Parts: sequence; structure tokens; C-alpha cells
Amino acid sequence: MLRIVDIIEKKRDGEVLTKEEIEFFVTGYTNGSIPDYQASAFLMAVFFQKMTTEEQGHLTMAMAESGDQIDLSAIEGVKVDKHSTGGVGDTTTLILAPLVAACGVPVAKMSGRGLGHTGGTLDKLEAIEGFHVEISTEQFIQQVNELKIAVIGQSGNLTPADKKLYALRDVTATVDSIPLIASSIMSKKLAAGADAIVLDVKTGAGAFMKTLEDSRQLADAMVAIGNEVGRNTSAVISDMSQPLGLAIGNALEVKEAIETLQGKGPADLTELCLVLGSKMLLAAGKAASDVDARAQLQSVIKNGEALRLFGELIKAQGGNAEVIANPDLLPHAQYQIEVPAKQSGYVSEIDADEVGVAAMLLGAGRATKEDVIDLSVGIVLCRKIGDYVKEGEPLAILHSNKQQVDDSIKLLQDHIYISAEKAEAPSLIHSL
Amino acid sequence: MLRIVDIIEKKRDGEVLTKEEIEFFVTGYTNGSIPDYQASAFLMAVFFQKMTTEEQGHLTMAMAESGDQIDLSAIEGVKVDKHSTGGVGDTTTLILAPLVAACGVPVAKMSGRGLGHTGGTLDKLEAIEGFHVEISTEQFIQQVNELKIAVIGQSGNLTPADKKLYALRDVTATVDSIPLIASSIMSKKLAAGADAIVLDVKTGAGAFMKTLEDSRQLADAMVAIGNEVGRNTSAVISDMSQPLGLAIGNALEVKEAIETLQGKGPADLTELCLVLGSKMLLAAGKAASDVDARAQLQSVIKNGEALRLFGELIKAQGGNAEVIANPDLLPHAQYQIEVPAKQSGYVSEIDADEVGVAAMLLGAGRATKEDVIDLSVGIVLCRKIGDYVKEGEPLAILHSNKQQVDDSIKLLQDHIYISAEKAEAPSLIHSL
Repeated sequence: MLRIVDIIEKKRDGEVLTKEEIEFFVTGYTNGSIPDYQASAFLMAVFFQKMTTEEQGHLTMAMAESGDQIDLSAIEGVKVDKHSTGGVGDTTTLILAPLVAACGVPVAKMSGRGLGHTGGTLDKLEAIEGFHVEISTEQFIQQVNELKIAVIGQSGNLTPADKKLYALRDVTATVDSIPLIASSIMSKKLAAGADAIVLDVKTGAGAFMKTLEDSRQLADAMVAIGNEVGRNTSAVISDMSQPLGLAIGNALEVKEAIETLQGKGPADLTELCLVLGSKMLLAAGKAASDVDARAQLQSVIKNGEALRLFGELIKAQGGNAEVIANPDLLPHAQYQIEVPAKQSGYVSEIDADEVGVAAMLLGAGRATKEDVIDLSVGIVLCRKIGDYVKEGEPLAILHSNKQQVDDSIKLLQDHIYISAEKAEAPSLIHSL
Repeated sequence: MLRIVDIIEKKRDGEVLTKEEIEFFVTGYTNGSIPDYQASAFLMAVFFQKMTTEEQGHLTMAMAESGDQIDLSAIEGVKVDKHSTGGVGDTTTLILAPLVAACGVPVAKMSGRGLGHTGGTLDKLEAIEGFHVEISTEQFIQQVNELKIAVIGQSGNLTPADKKLYALRDVTATVDSIPLIASSIMSKKLAAGADAIVLDVKTGAGAFMKTLEDSRQLADAMVAIGNEVGRNTSAVISDMSQPLGLAIGNALEVKEAIETLQGKGPADLTELCLVLGSKMLLAAGKAASDVDARAQLQSVIKNGEALRLFGELIKAQGGNAEVIANPDLLPHAQYQIEVPAKQSGYVSEIDADEVGVAAMLLGAGRATKEDVIDLSVGIVLCRKIGDYVKEGEPLAILHSNKQQVDDSIKLLQDHIYISAEKAEAPSLIHSL
């Protein structure tokens, strides 16, 4: 007869928990027979004593199985999901989805809204007139089988254990635990039906993981869990010391995605999409090598197939597909306000988090679930690290529906650092 | 503006908490503004990161101040309280109270019932016909001023923070934390109005602390807290590898106390009372040296003054004081059943905990608050470690109100170990 107090004590004393003990905890906590106060003591014990890969695998599976699980078996091919740990101006999903789908990888993407500097993938797509993300699971699967691509909002009761545990961790100082973070992310991917998973772990000032070492630990943990539970899993550690690409804001990022699919996107965003896309193609068995994968991806950009498929996606989900030819159809803000450099020199550092806050102040994101996003507003950077700027030239353009934006201007001027010496652009990919 | 999640995180990261932070936690948890789940995460963080003496002092004071505090200032002299961490057959309070009171130290004892192998001091005293422990604080203080001695049950709402935290620790595997144990004990002593505190920390198989090292750590922690908060505090580490004295059971222990006050008690119990009593006299400023203190204590045993005062205490609190001359007036059990040795040899080990369980099976203690104690039952040991016993001779006598006591007999036979080689009695006092 298992007792939670014994399980807490066992973990507290650094022992390895069995599958049964971990399932007992997850099931009991989900159904309420284990109260919050025992769960939080357990989580704090895990914080200190960590978990083996095997334990993390059990925890991940137990959380994945705690609620509904999406069955994607009716979709032909290897379903590869991509997950990013989040950053500022991360438009990769909008680009990657049509990009890899155009190479024949089925993209059955379940996405979120979330809280942050901008909306999530769903919010961004809804910047396209008419686009809707609420379709039934049957339609979803049919669309993927026909078009190779569909993006929907989370439906059903996925990973309730993770939701409940995350809310508890948030108020008990047990968020920053690699085994708990890794299991949480992986459980959601499993419940969403992924056969294979490509992870984009961000690192740097604008990321959840600020140091390369922490990012590497998280990436390693998630890859180990994925392999432990039989999912082909790989990870990239990518730079988030400055925002990715140039656009931060919902409609602005859709526009940037279209440009990138046209082969005219920012270099860093394009490169990251090629790196992640290659891994997805490899995981799906659609490419023989990295070189082959990259060539396929570049080819569907060049021949317009990826962009065309983005249009098909938009059309299939009720949106106005003309935006791909004419991005000015996207909502745009009333004012475009330059943020001038206060001195001449090289951009040496861009505090991504603060750029995110500046975008949030314009209305691009939500701090609470109830906040309403202004899809048209945001920031477009004019300079990135290593670029030269003359005093008075724009560092960025604010897209705003209010004229009074002094706070955002000050934030950007204070957190886009300018140095007399030439600065090096940070490397985009820290690890493959 | 303090936030509990920040305080948990600070402790989790091994930082030292301020007085304000610790008070914020204790006050918030007591009044319910901090929920159990945050408190338990905090406690687990303390389990791992420990607390400095200063932090433990703040925690102790905050818990002591969380409810009513007994004001003993109307009692003349230094109020010295004694606390034992608990063991099997520990009759010291019944003896020490009249013993030191007879030497002029005011004994304003607030005692408990608690759960365990036998009842607490209050239960034992109630084995004396008519003795009552519920008297008002005013009467209590008056009695101490007149007689130098009174023993009452806890009245009022003492250390609610400690009570609430202890209940939470019990179900979250955070009991075994020296800073938490030490603060809990010390907070109760402070709230009960002690000017000085003498601690009897038990060590060995029958004690809460099984190893000498753990016992020493707990003793050191409590002495440090006491001095931190301005109370003269000292500790003795005493043996609990076998039961103390010979009697385990409520009325049986009262009888043993009377015998000890007559100078006819078991050697170990007598010695421990002299050691603890000396420390109490020194703390109260009633003796110039250990030698002086011990001489005074021996003198009031010899001249009958200590026993006489025990009689006065009984009389003042409504009990039949004739028991001190005639202990047969105490309730006695219907059956006295010998536990014969199954082989000849020297007693090499007595598992005190198991002897306690055997007493409990007879009805001497309570497992839950609702259990009713049979004050007349218990065990009197006939042999202790180092003693020789012949096969068939009694190891102990069970005092029982039921004839069927096979389980208790088996427990004793199995846990009083007999060896062919001569065994040494353990030293009673491990540290002063």
C-alpha cells in the first residue's frame, strides 16, 4: 500500500522512485486524493534531489496519460513536432510548418496562446482575416492527410496533471528544476501525439534559460526523456541574447514569416528555420542527411512551394490567402514611430526581455489570460548586434495605435546598447 | 512588500532569512494567509538548506509569540523549565519537580498528555485519586508562590504556529529537521514562560534521535537557540538504548517516582534526576557548583523534604496525598504476569521501543487522541542490560487487566536479548 508521505521521504533522501510510485503521485495529485501541500513538498524534494532519466520518463508518461491524448495514427507518416522554449520575436513555427510540410512531412500542429511579450502561434495566425483555429479533431486529421498541414488550438483536457503541477510550482519556488521543466514539456508533446520531437532550446538574456550550461542541461534532459519513452528526439540550442529576426508583434511576425518563406527573411530567422527544419526532415525519414534536408528546404523556398502551402493552410482554415501575395492586407497600426539612436556606434547588446516589455507596452502581448491583444502593434528592429548606427538614425520602428509611446522608446534606447568598438554578432546555434 | 514565494526561493537557494521574513512566514501561516502548500515547500527547503542559529532564534520567537504566552513574572525567582525529548519509562518530571522545588526553585510546570507508549505527566498524575490538573492561571501562580510547585495542563492557545506546522510536517516528510525540531521545542518552552531551560536529549534505540551524533546536534541547536533568545539553556544527552528505570506505565511510574523520592529508586533514574536537578539548581542560581547542587538534592531526598513536597502538591491539587506513604492506593491491574527468560545469560540489549509497544498493547498509552488509557497497566522490568538471568526467571512483570497477553510476552522475549557473554551496561550520561 503506497503512501505519499513515504514517497516524499524516499525522494527527499535521494532514492530512486519506481514507476508505480511516480504514477501513484501523478494520479493521486490529479484526482485530488493527494493534497497540494504534499505535492509541493514532493516537488521541493525533487528540486534538491533531482530525478534519473528513468524517473523523468515515468513522470512524463504519467502526466501525458493523465488526461486526453491525441491519436494521430490516422495520419500517414512520421508526425514530427517542434517545440521552442520561448523567446522574443520567435516566428519559427509560422515558417517551419509550411516549410517542412512542403517537403512531405505531415504537420499536425496543436498550438497555444499563452502569456508573453506577443501572442502565441494561434494569435499570430488570427491576425490573418478569417483564419480560425477551432476545428474538430476529425477535420484536423483529414486536413493534414489532404494538405499535409493544419494548425489548431488545444482541444480536450490535455495533461491536466501538468497543468495542476505547473500552477503549484509557480507559487512554491519549484519552477526552476530541470527534471520538472523537461517532464512538463515532454508530457505535452506526447499527449499531442508526436512520434518524433525536435526541440529548440533558447539560451541567453531573452530566454527562460539564461546560461548556456542550463540550456544544455534542459536540452539533454528532454532528449534523454524522449529516447527513454521511445520518441526520436533531438535538440538545438539557439541564441536568444537578442530577439530572433526583426519583428516582434503578431501581424508583424506573420509578415516576416511570409518574407522568410519568400527567401527574403532575416538571416538569423532563416538559418534557424533551416537548422530546425533539417532535423524535422531527418526525424521524419524524409532526408538522408543534413545536406540533403537543407537542399530540400531551400528548394521549396526557392520554387515557392512552401509559401504556396502556407496559402493553402490559410484558405483551408477560412483565412484570406491573399495576404501571402499582399501582406499589407494584415492589420496595421495607426502610427509608425522611429526610435532614434542617442549616439553613434556599434550595437553591442540588445536586452531581448526589455524589447519584449516594450512590445507588451504597445499592446502586443498579454500579462493575464483576460488581456486582449492588439494584433497590429509591435516593434521592428532596424539594427541588431554588430550593426553600426549613426546618432539619430532609427534603432527600431514602433508600430502603435497610440501616439504616446515614450516609455517604449526609453526602454529600447536604454536596452539597445551602443559601443564605440566594433561588436561581434553572437553565434546563432550553440549546439546541435 | 514581502511575498512568501520569494522567501521560499531565498531559503531554497541557501540564503539566510531576516527576522522580518521569518515573522512574515510564521504570522501568515498561523492566520491562514499563507496556505499549506507554500508552507510545506518552505519546510522542505529548510530541511535541505537548514537554518543559522539566528534564523532558528527568530523562528522560535515568532512561534512562541504566535499565540498566548504565559506570564510567570508574578512568581518570585528564576523559573527553570525542564524538557525531555521523550523515551520509554521516563518518569523524571514526577521526581524532579518536587526535588528541585524542595531546594527552593519555583516549579511552574505546564505539562502535556501526548501520544506514546504511556501517557504524559498529566496522565500519570491523574493516576492519583482526585488529582486534577485544570486550575486557573491565577491559582497556578499563587500555588507556586506558596508551595514552590504546581503542575497544570496546557491552557490557552499556546504556540498555534508550532501546532499547525507540526501537523503539516508530519504528513510532508519534514519532521526530521534539526532546526525545525529545535525551534518547535524551544518555542513551547518560551511560550510557557521559562526564564531558563534544562534539556534532556535522549539518545539510542528508544529515543526520537537514534544516534549520538543526531542527539548532540539537536542538543547543540536548542542550547544555541536558548542563548540566542536570552534564556539560560543547558542540555544533557542521556541514554535511551534501554528504558529508563524499571517501570513503564502510568500508576507504575508514579510508584517508582515515590520510591525514587524516598531514595529507593532505580540507580539510573535516580542518577539522571540528580544530574538534571543539579543543572536546574545552577540555572536558578540556587547552587554555587555542581557538587553543591548535588549535595542539596541528596539532602532533600534524605530528609524527606522532596517527598513531603510531592505530598503537598498532590493535596493542593485535590489528590489523595496518602499515596506517598502507601503507594498501594494507586490503581493496580488485575493480573501480574511474569515474562520468563527463554535462556540463561546476560541481558545484552533491550529494545526500548518494543518494550514501549508491549506496554501500549496492555493499554498503557494512546495511539490517537481519542484512545482511553488504562492508568493501572504496564510493565516492570526485572532485569536491565548487564544483569544475569536464569532460564525461566522473570525478565519483566506485566501488569494487565486482561489475561491474554501473549503478544506482549513475545515482544519482550524477542526484544530483551540474552547473550552468553557478560554485557556492559550503557553509560547513562553521554554528554553534559
